[in-house]
Parts: sequence; structure tokens; C-alpha cells
Amino acid sequence: MLSPKNLKKYFSSSDIDIVQHKLDQKTKPLGSLGTLEDLARQMALIQQNEFNGSIIIKPTHVRYAGDHGIAMQHRVSIAPSSLTTGMINNFIAHGAAINAICKSNNIPLEIIDCGVAEPKFDSPICNKSVGHGTKDFSVEDAMTEEELAKALKNGSDTVENLYQKGITTLLLGEMGIGNTSSASAIFAKLYNLDVDTVVGRGTGINDEQLTLKKTLISQGLNRHQEDLKPSDILRCYGGFEIATMCGSMLKAAELNMIILVDGFVVTAAAAIAVASVPNSLKNMIYAHTSGEGAHKLILSKLGVNAVVNFGMRLGEGTGAAVVLPLLKSAASCYNDMAYFDGDGNIVQKSN
Amino acid sequence: MLSPKNLKKYFSSSDIDIVQHKLDQKTKPLGSLGTLEDLARQMALIQQNEFNGSIIIKPTHVRYAGDHGIAMQHRVSIAPSSLTTGMINNFIAHGAAINAICKSNNIPLEIIDCGVAEPKFDSPICNKSVGHGTKDFSVEDAMTEEELAKALKNGSDTVENLYQKGITTLLLGEMGIGNTSSASAIFAKLYNLDVDTVVGRGTGINDEQLTLKKTLISQGLNRHQEDLKPSDILRCYGGFEIATMCGSMLKAAELNMIILVDGFVVTAAAAIAVASVPNSLKNMIYAHTSGEGAHKLILSKLGVNAVVNFGMRLGEGTGAAVVLPLLKSAASCYNDMAYFDGDGNIVQKSN
Repeated sequence: MLSPKNLKKYFSSSDIDIVQHKLDQKTKPLGSLGTLEDLARQMALIQQNEFNGSIIIKPTHVRYAGDHGIAMQHRVSIAPSSLTTGMINNFIAHGAAINAICKSNNIPLEIIDCGVAEPKFDSPICNKSVGHGTKDFSVEDAMTEEELAKALKNGSDTVENLYQKGITTLLLGEMGIGNTSSASAIFAKLYNLDVDTVVGRGTGINDEQLTLKKTLISQGLNRHQEDLKPSDILRCYGGFEIATMCGSMLKAAELNMIILVDGFVVTAAAAIAVASVPNSLKNMIYAHTSGEGAHKLILSKLGVNAVVNFGMRLGEGTGAAVVLPLLKSAASCYNDMAYFDGDGNIVQKSN
Repeated sequence: MLSPKNLKKYFSSSDIDIVQHKLDQKTKPLGSLGTLEDLARQMALIQQNEFNGSIIIKPTHVRYAGDHGIAMQHRVSIAPSSLTTGMINNFIAHGAAINAICKSNNIPLEIIDCGVAEPKFDSPICNKSVGHGTKDFSVEDAMTEEELAKALKNGSDTVENLYQKGITTLLLGEMGIGNTSSASAIFAKLYNLDVDTVVGRGTGINDEQLTLKKTLISQGLNRHQEDLKPSDILRCYGGFEIATMCGSMLKAAELNMIILVDGFVVTAAAAIAVASVPNSLKNMIYAHTSGEGAHKLILSKLGVNAVVNFGMRLGEGTGAAVVLPLLKSAASCYNDMAYFDGDGNIVQKSN
């Protein structure tokens, strides 16, 4: 989430003061809800309800799936590319971690095929496929201009549709074997970081695979010595699921939605969105600090803190789903607590 | 929660191995659920369901209220003692932070009068009152042997009753103006710590009040130069709500319940319980690291880590209520996820 200092870059002082005053009147010592107050403050400001409204959290968790040429050609992950489809079928069968966590927290789930290599699904899922996996970015650009535009529009359309259904809060997750390679390359180009800083072990590769992963990513980065625009970084190194997420986030920001960003790969999409439209950062709440690569460094470059650090590293948007109840608790405190009047008497909300 | 190392002190290696094997078969990289796996492991072992059962989380949040002689005589808190009753009435009217958070997380709530000075409640609450506030421990022992025994039994009976209703998970919260003074004194005696280390600003007292608070606590501690048994520490410096919580935790441990411990004051009750029956620690999950006094130090002395640190400092058991959904997510992953068979195929639970 945004620190109180950074909040001032995105919202007016008078709006911040109104929200703060509302929090300070509540029947609790000043500031004593800690992180919950930080969350409530940002959410109230995102929803522009600071004058008399409540924070409304109507969530949907969308998992964006796609395959990556680099992983289809090389073993840069602990799992083969075919596991992307395998895990989607596990999502469909409700057997994955993200299913368990969303079930536990009553979060509706959607799965989108943004560009899976082998779309052999046990039940139909939302088809927004741009192609059967990207090109191998270690030797050529991951996608064409047309593919990028299509993926961005798919992401935007997805969110427009959710918004029409009354959804206020977008949780993003991803599934794509090899996508930490893609995310690492994006961060390296976007923030001018070296490969040793941005590349990690993903879901748990060994030393040999790590060396291969770094070599291939370096090779890919060296293909473009010139400065690249954010959208070109996305096109040259991104995945179809990353580009689709980026389109979704930009639309969600435009619609004053709350965007709950998960770990390393979703942050890559978020970083491109923010580099393209800086103001979109105000809508984003970063759920979980990933142990992967330079996630902590990237968050500091974005000027945000993640809500928790639970040492999770399995993607799927599990961090966002785990954190949603905290947003709901924060909203409930903001919406439902009694307040002290000027004389220190407790006044219930309904009065 | 217990670290993997400390887990071995309380549970057999073979039981731990069975639970770990179940976690390791799930459709996720090994260990990739981080803190959620730590929680699932401890909860499965507490419930002794490691062979074929599920973790069952049926929670109730109990708020234990009592008044403190030290706060009735002196201004050691930002609020007068009368606010204990005021806040209980706020609980009854659903206006407090803990109400908002429990509502958001579907947690049933109970309130117990363990010994409030002025029990003028807007609706009846569970009456387990041992007296109208403790004695001022800066000049005399807080309670008699009989009062202590009664409070411990009240706590035990409360939990026995919840257990009979099928509750598996006890969340504890407290309300009692002045009870951080009581908790600080308990920690000082129990761990031989000095007043400057254990005394903090509670909900936000100023420098003058802090000096008074330290002086009074020192005075109280000096009354007993001899070594005191844990139960005598509780009797001499505790509150009725702290003693009742202690009785509840000991019974909950005996019944293999999960005990979700909140911040500074609930930890004081937990520390006495553990000093009396060391094995009770295995049932406890510490929700939140308080900013108050030496809470972090006390947790390290107990050999536990808190699940989160959100900078909350309002008591009421808010930390426990905020953390409960994380326990539910952990349990759901343990109970509901599919697993990989020996050949790497995904097998759904229902198969």
C-alpha cells in the first residue's frame, strides 16, 4: 500500500484530511489500528467516498494464464511448460492452493486463457488467447505489436465486464511456467538492474538451471541495447498473461477500482502499468513481498509496501487471496465502528 | 506460532513427519506456502488428526473484561476506569473495532464480566465476576487466593462450555483500563526484567503518566523481594480478566483446542499458563506482535513468533480476529488441495 507520505502525491490534502478525521473519531486510540488504518485510508480515497460513503469490497480473483517461449524451449523452471495446462485443470477441479484459499475467504474465481500453448482444458474457461505461447525472448521479441495490443485490450475488456457486474476489487493471479524469467527481464530493462539482482530461483530451480536462466535472460536483454518504452519492454520480454494483466490494471485504475497485486510476476505487469500511467499506482495495494529475485527492491522503487510477508512463493495470486480478509476487516472498521463525539461520549453509527 | 525447531519439543518426530508428508504431496512447490504451512502443521498436530483427518476451525472470540485497582486509584492510562464499562456497552452495541472485525470474518463473539468495577451494562453479558475490580497492586496484592481460584475456574468452565458446543478454536481478547500495567508487572516478575524494559505507553499515555506508571509498578514489584510461583505472580499483580484468561487457556490446551493469543495483555495470561504447564505452549498461536513494552522480547522468551505485525495497539483481541482468516486459509490448503502422486500426476482429493 502507499505510505502516508506517498499518499499525498496522489490525493488532495483536503480529501486525505476528511478520511483521517473519520478514522480519528472512531472508538479507539488514535492510529491504533495500524496497517488496517493505512488500508482503509487508501481504499476510501480510491473509491472517492470520503464525504459520506462506505468502502465497498466486492472482490473477484482473476487468474491470467499463458505460456512462455523461453520455457517451452529451455528448462528454466522446475516444471515443464505442459504443467501450465495441468495446473489450469487443477484450478478447474478446485484442487490448487488458490482454490482452497478463495473458498476459505469466499472470493469468486475466474480463469482466463491469455495464451496457453496447449489449451486442452477439462472444462471451458474464458478464452482470451492471443496465441499458443510467446516467442522465446532470449532469441527474438516475445510478441508482435498486434499481439500486445490484443492482450492489453483483452485485459481491459475483462475488467470492464467485472465492473459492470458491480465488482469493486480486482485480485490478480497468474499461471505460466517460466513467467518469473519474463518478469525478471522486464524489471531489468525497466529499472536498469543487472541479471544477478533480478533473477531468482522461481519455484525452486537448482544451481545449473539458475545459471541457464541467467544466461538466457542476459542474452535476451542484450538484443536491445537501445532505450525501450514501457510498452516495448512488455512486447519484447513479457508474456501474454502479463500483458493482459497490465491492460486489466490500467482499466481498473481508470474505473476507481481497488487492485490487489500479488507477488513477483503480477508486480511486473503492475510496474509496466505504472511506468505507462503513473497515477495508476494509487489504486494498487501490494499484498505480499515475494522472496523471489528483487521483489523487495522493486517495491521500494515503486514507493509501496506490501501488506504481509509470509514467505509464499507459488504464484497463482495466493498472496492477494490471503490478504483480502485484511482489506475487508479494514473496510469494516471504517464503515461500522462507533465514534466519540466532542465530549468523549460514544455514539453508535445508526444514531 | 512454533518454529519448526520448537515443534519437535512438543510433538513426536513421527507425527511431524506424517503431517509434513501430507503438505509435501500437495500441488505446489515444496514449502511454497510459507507461513500458511507453519500454521497448518501446528494446527494439525494440535488436533492430533495427522493420520487422515482435516483441520477443523470452529472459532469463538471471547472478550474478558475486568477493572484494575491501580487504574481506579491513579491515572496510568489515557482513559479513566469507567471506560471499561463504556467500552463493554460499545461491544454490546456492536460499535467497537473488535465487533467490526469479527463481523467481517464471521467470528461469533462473547463478552465475560470477570470483575468490572461498575457493571452497568446496557444488556446482560456473561457474569463471571470475581469482584468489582482488583486491589491496587502498587500497595497490596491484587487479589486473594480465593479470588484467584475462582477466576481460574471461571475461565476453565467457560472453555469447557465452548468445547461442548463444538468450538475448536479459542480467540482471546481483553478489556480493562490499566491492564498493561498489570501485564508489565507480570512480565517483570516472571522473567526478571526491569521496569524500563517492560513498561510502555499502553494506548498512548504522555511522559508524565509514563513516569507515574513506572513508579507505581516499581513500588508494587518491590513489595515482594522473594521468588514467587507463577500463580502467586498472577495473584499479586494480575487482573481478574487476566486470571480468567489463564484458566481458559489451560483448559483449552487440555482439550486439544487451538488458542489464538492476541497482544501484550493476553500474552501475560499465556505466559503464566505456560510457566505453570509448559506443554500448553504447543496449543498457542500468537497472532500479532504488539508495539507495547517488551512484547517482542517476551515472544522470544516463549520461543514463538507472532503471525503478523500490523502495528495495532488497541487490545480487545483485535489481533487474533484479524489473523483468524489466515488460519482458515492454511486449514483449507491442508484439507482441500489436490496432491501429486508418485509419477507427478495431479490427483484430486475426492478420488
